[in-house]
Amino acid sequence: MAIKVHGNPFSPPVQRVFLTLVEKDLDYEFVFVDLSIRQHKKEPYLLMNPFGQVPSFEDGDLTLFESRAITRYIAYAYADKGTPLIDQDPKKFAIISVWLEVESLKFDAAGQKLSFELVIKPLLGLTTDESAVEPLQGQLALVLDVYEARLSESKYLGGDSFTLADLHHVPIVNNLMKTKVKALFDARPHVSAWASDILARPTWAKVLASIKR
Amino acid sequence: MAIKVHGNPFSPPVQRVFLTLVEKDLDYEFVFVDLSIRQHKKEPYLLMNPFGQVPSFEDGDLTLFESRAITRYIAYAYADKGTPLIDQDPKKFAIISVWLEVESLKFDAAGQKLSFELVIKPLLGLTTDESAVEPLQGQLALVLDVYEARLSESKYLGGDSFTLADLHHVPIVNNLMKTKVKALFDARPHVSAWASDILARPTWAKVLASIKR
Repeated sequence: MAIKVHGNPFSPPVQRVFLTLVEKDLDYEFVFVDLSIRQHKKEPYLLMNPFGQVPSFEDGDLTLFESRAITRYIAYAYADKGTPLIDQDPKKFAIISVWLEVESLKFDAAGQKLSFELVIKPLLGLTTDESAVEPLQGQLALVLDVYEARLSESKYLGGDSFTLADLHHVPIVNNLMKTKVKALFDARPHVSAWASDILARPTWAKVLASIKR
Repeated sequence: MAIKVHGNPFSPPVQRVFLTLVEKDLDYEFVFVDLSIRQHKKEPYLLMNPFGQVPSFEDGDLTLFESRAITRYIAYAYADKGTPLIDQDPKKFAIISVWLEVESLKFDAAGQKLSFELVIKPLLGLTTDESAVEPLQGQLALVLDVYEARLSESKYLGGDSFTLADLHHVPIVNNLMKTKVKALFDARPHVSAWASDILARPTWAKVLASIKR
């Protein structure tokens, strides 16, 4: 098979790549990387990703890392397949790009740390640092205030349809909805409706089913 | 004039947009935003950028924020003008995208904080937090180790030619080279040569001259 994803299925960035591939109706091979024996911090894995993080990705002779670069490549290279996740029009694509940056630099900056403290640490038998949770919730609330305003005038972040800008949020939103952080979403009607919508995609159900196997 | 950049000329993200416009040989109007009276945190500025940060950008009826979304738009919409900063080939573009992500999530995470502590704070008459500087230098050194390996096999981060992936670094590298952090660059020959090369671009000299005016 031409496309391979290397990583751990519980990693949100790995799930982000899975979801993109399923939206694009592309087959792929999953290559498990055992984080518990620090396989990602040793060769040969480091030859694919010098930062020693998951995921890494192969498509024939192309090797990539950084989940958001991988998803952009898939959306761009396979533009004609499955869900159109970007827009060929430069101005429409630019609006999507703005919200891609916001996800990465604003939402995820707080969201992935909350997901780590409240979901991943308990899974690994580690203790949540409650003193870190409160300021992160405050930080996320400010981001969600901007989202509430944006989503009151636009069904999705990038425009009228679901794009990569929404997709990039799915794994972390999915984790946060199982925690007390859900209250921050529930308090904002447009954010709450958007979160329900993007989590209800049949493609995401497929990803979750594949992870459980 | 159709293109407008709103911001403060000493902001590295604003400089990133200036440099992209000069590389693309595009005229633009600069609209000064007075950060000292918190103009960026009030309407009408917030209507352009709900996060209250600089820069914001206009091209006719299009309004954008987030410097990296703005530069991507310029590179994509004006692909035929000036320096080609991206690549139309999906696989080559994907490699550029990887290093765009690395700049944003790895290099800038340490670099902009060091620039703030060691360059911006003294400019504003604030005191550098020396206790923050050392761990940030350690963090940046690890990133530059990866850059040294990459730049030993490729003249630029994204490939054989200067692209947006290199360009995004220029304002912060320019600031850091005036500080003790320069030693981290000097200790790595390929990184040092790359930094000299990207700072020596005539387009960057033009940007610096326009800032001083």
